[in-house]
Amino acid sequence: MRHVQPEATTQDANTQDLKGVDVNRRSMLKYLGLGMTVPGIAAVLTACGVGAPAASAVTASPSAEPSHSEAASHDTESTSKSSKKGLDWEEMDRMHEEGVKQFPAKTAAMGNQPLEPRIEDGVKVFELTAGVVQWEVTPGEFEEAWAYNEQVPGPQIRVTNGDQVRIIVKNDLPESTAVHWHGLIVPNNQDGVPFITQPPIKPGETYTYEFTVKNSGSHMYHAHHNSTKQVGKGLLGAFIVEPKERSADPEYDIDYTMILNDQLGGFTVNGKGFPATEPVVAKLGQKLRIRYMNEGLLIHPMHLHGLPQLVFARDGWNLPQPYMADTINVAPGERWDVIVECTEPGVWAFHCHILSHAESEHGMFGMVTALIIEE
Amino acid sequence: MRHVQPEATTQDANTQDLKGVDVNRRSMLKYLGLGMTVPGIAAVLTACGVGAPAASAVTASPSAEPSHSEAASHDTESTSKSSKKGLDWEEMDRMHEEGVKQFPAKTAAMGNQPLEPRIEDGVKVFELTAGVVQWEVTPGEFEEAWAYNEQVPGPQIRVTNGDQVRIIVKNDLPESTAVHWHGLIVPNNQDGVPFITQPPIKPGETYTYEFTVKNSGSHMYHAHHNSTKQVGKGLLGAFIVEPKERSADPEYDIDYTMILNDQLGGFTVNGKGFPATEPVVAKLGQKLRIRYMNEGLLIHPMHLHGLPQLVFARDGWNLPQPYMADTINVAPGERWDVIVECTEPGVWAFHCHILSHAESEHGMFGMVTALIIEE
Amino acid sequence: MRHVQPEATTQDANTQDLKGVDVNRRSMLKYLGLGMTVPGIAAVLTACGVGAPAASAVTASPSAEPSHSEAASHDTESTSKSSKKGLDWEEMDRMHEEGVKQFPAKTAAMGNQPLEPRIEDGVKVFELTAGVVQWEVTPGEFEEAWAYNEQVPGPQIRVTNGDQVRIIVKNDLPESTAVHWHGLIVPNNQDGVPFITQPPIKPGETYTYEFTVKNSGSHMYHAHHNSTKQVGKGLLGAFIVEPKERSADPEYDIDYTMILNDQLGGFTVNGKGFPATEPVVAKLGQKLRIRYMNEGLLIHPMHLHGLPQLVFARDGWNLPQPYMADTINVAPGERWDVIVECTEPGVWAFHCHILSHAESEHGMFGMVTALIIEE
Repeated sequence: MRHVQPEATTQDANTQDLKGVDVNRRSMLKYLGLGMTVPGIAAVLTACGVGAPAASAVTASPSAEPSHSEAASHDTESTSKSSKKGLDWEEMDRMHEEGVKQFPAKTAAMGNQPLEPRIEDGVKVFELTAGVVQWEVTPGEFEEAWAYNEQVPGPQIRVTNGDQVRIIVKNDLPESTAVHWHGLIVPNNQDGVPFITQPPIKPGETYTYEFTVKNSGSHMYHAHHNSTKQVGKGLLGAFIVEPKERSADPEYDIDYTMILNDQLGGFTVNGKGFPATEPVVAKLGQKLRIRYMNEGLLIHPMHLHGLPQLVFARDGWNLPQPYMADTINVAPGERWDVIVECTEPGVWAFHCHILSHAESEHGMFGMVTALIIEE
Repeated sequence: MRHVQPEATTQDANTQDLKGVDVNRRSMLKYLGLGMTVPGIAAVLTACGVGAPAASAVTASPSAEPSHSEAASHDTESTSKSSKKGLDWEEMDRMHEEGVKQFPAKTAAMGNQPLEPRIEDGVKVFELTAGVVQWEVTPGEFEEAWAYNEQVPGPQIRVTNGDQVRIIVKNDLPESTAVHWHGLIVPNNQDGVPFITQPPIKPGETYTYEFTVKNSGSHMYHAHHNSTKQVGKGLLGAFIVEPKERSADPEYDIDYTMILNDQLGGFTVNGKGFPATEPVVAKLGQKLRIRYMNEGLLIHPMHLHGLPQLVFARDGWNLPQPYMADTINVAPGERWDVIVECTEPGVWAFHCHILSHAESEHGMFGMVTALIIEE
Repeated sequence: MRHVQPEATTQDANTQDLKGVDVNRRSMLKYLGLGMTVPGIAAVLTACGVGAPAASAVTASPSAEPSHSEAASHDTESTSKSSKKGLDWEEMDRMHEEGVKQFPAKTAAMGNQPLEPRIEDGVKVFELTAGVVQWEVTPGEFEEAWAYNEQVPGPQIRVTNGDQVRIIVKNDLPESTAVHWHGLIVPNNQDGVPFITQPPIKPGETYTYEFTVKNSGSHMYHAHHNSTKQVGKGLLGAFIVEPKERSADPEYDIDYTMILNDQLGGFTVNGKGFPATEPVVAKLGQKLRIRYMNEGLLIHPMHLHGLPQLVFARDGWNLPQPYMADTINVAPGERWDVIVECTEPGVWAFHCHILSHAESEHGMFGMVTALIIEE
């Protein structure tokens, strides 16, 4: 593992979030050199040269079923077949392809956007408002979310170890709440557990947390009152603490936070289900840091195709001995940090390997995204 | 990690178990300097200075809903609201507070109590009787348990590596049984698997196991016949083997065993559900060893608020490289040993981070306890 | 950990698979010196000397229930009891014993058999045909499987790092498919994700994958189209890459691959449920390498009785610091490699420690096998 000093060239993938899906699509298209009129990932496939070898690799055997070239009759047939024995395979293929073509599908808002603090007397002051919003999980699928600053996940708080922070929480929910700083070492009375370390923050009230940040790493914040429901409905976010001295971390060019959830809107990555999930975009040769966080009720073993992951931190603490893996099993409440060396160009599927969280007969859904490595 | 020789000052938290909840409550009260008449953790909160900063931190905004000061009308209202759209938030808060105030709630018996052997010709002889009891999981909630020596978990067996042990098992259950020494290296014919290494122990029979202990660490014993039901109903316990030479372990002052289960009485820690769970009590500056053991059917990622955990052993075997984490994902059959340095005073929530195992709209329940660090 | 050069004496337990259950039974019988007419594991128990100490260890107490010596009246009684309060305990014992006596029960075919490549111009060419078969999970229990080369798991592909491989996949399924090489570093257009890296392989079509193997270790191949169903129905197998230089691995004598699944036919080890699972057979003093692979939807913490496991590789990558454990929690998509030193003779139960995956009131089932260590 290489250890390096912070570099000016280090970019933060999370800043891409600010600009949303259009940016990602533009990024893909720029990579492809195809301009602005392409219907999604199908173009990526062509550009990656998949079309040609694939065509030559396939040989229809004499026993192949006759192909249905007329969509209309095909649809009719598949409907009638569906009523008896499930989907017709060509209809299934069409649905699978449609999902991939839509990726990354545009939805109304993105979560996990950087939250800029204001500075008051050297204190970084963040404001969070917990409220009720309609959240678009996949195109056209809106769910009632309980969200911080109208985002699911909530806005990303990012500070440096040693910072003094003040977080002002306004409760616009229909019930009481409180915020726990999951993984941070804070004074007990700032820990966010109603009736143990503070009174609940009642509807309409505002409550202020303040503490000095004492440990770096990938942490979280979330509701700690009626939490199965409140976190389940979206009251969660990343709280990332940069070390004062970056040389303890491995070298990386891109910093990507991936929050897993399995309640609001089903199986989601950063608040969205495939095909509305955000691809991770890197250039060939870059080093990608992924911060996995699980705010759900189930484990999610995240499998990245094609490229191994160097696991180097657990719950914000660097491991004494990083190790390699390709499937990172993230349990509820855990965080895992890894480095991916982007050595192979292409579009790499990236999904939970509990397959029922990622694919049905109707195609990929839920916890599926892609790592796109541009040449 | 510091390695030290065994110290005379090392105390065993499990000996607290012998005296039950009253001791824990007294411990809390002594810590608080408040005598014997206090209704539980509410006092701790005051003593920790939570009341004052919390009050000043809260600001009721103009948009706050009117508060209901009359409990009677409030109750009536919440009942009528409940019938339509769930609990009223004030009723929810009341229920949440009530649970916390009851903690640690007194129940009829405690499991995991030290089992004293008698010595016969240098052999440590333990007696276990498997029978049917009514077990109080939370105040007033009795479940039919199948238990060793009327305890859930069964009594804690603790020996030193190299000891010769004899365990006499009496079966007072309505069906056959057998005992497996989970994690211990024993001769095959002492392994406890009916029809493979022994005949089943039929109802009314007594069976004797005998072996020399060959490996130290945090182990378990449990039924290995019709085990889904028998372990599920409570036939399980800790089998702890102290090393002959303690210098291989990190230094610690308190030794606490935490057995997780998810069948009998739902989600439990050492046989009890919150608020009847036992708090772990430490003094500021002490080092706490926790031995996690999972005898359930589900994973339980145990999250301790405020303080990181040094993970140093797995299944009774010390890791070559301990590492830090705050959420320890314990799978069925696994044991994990950690050290917590008690550097921050207060009452720290300590719970399974599968939130549905720990909190409902009615408040915290199940796999919730607290680490209380006394100044 | 000892690191050794490859030895001529290293044997591959998977070659035993070719010969099926008869070989295993013969192996057990040879071990026992009992010839060919013995009804299963009951004989092993006798040979291990369990009968004698067990008998002497049991003492019927006066309170024991009267024993039912007449099977007929017993059966009648248990039936009438069953209708009211579940199984009679003696009937339960009989069913438990019957399962153990049948182990290893013969079924029609074995999966995970070595697939021999043909060599064309230095390329190792493998052929896989995905089709529909009836698969016998336990004696007499047939399930419709979707299988490669009529095996569940599919045939084992085993190559050496650096090999050029070509895999020709014929689709005889009623729907499209594709194959993903899980854990292998391949060019993006060989990654097996329909509509992203290739077109789907339609029914009747044949598709060719070709790549140079770039990383060693325990990997898998499986369907990556409608994968919840297709992998669930059996389209999965082991893809093992031997390192060019074995000195990086610990020393071992036996190489055993254990693929866990929880869909087709319920809870299975290498496609079979107990008592049709295959025992692992070793000689006293041998070193056994186990390659755990999970192709299911649930975690499976595999517990081997009696002997600890040295965990030395994760997802095909050797760990910088191997560690000891007795319960290996394998999540979907993960692979774990361990070494067991076979230092204690006997028949060691080996099962998933989610007990409901391994035992019911009717006896052991599903994810249960045994490690038999011959003296």
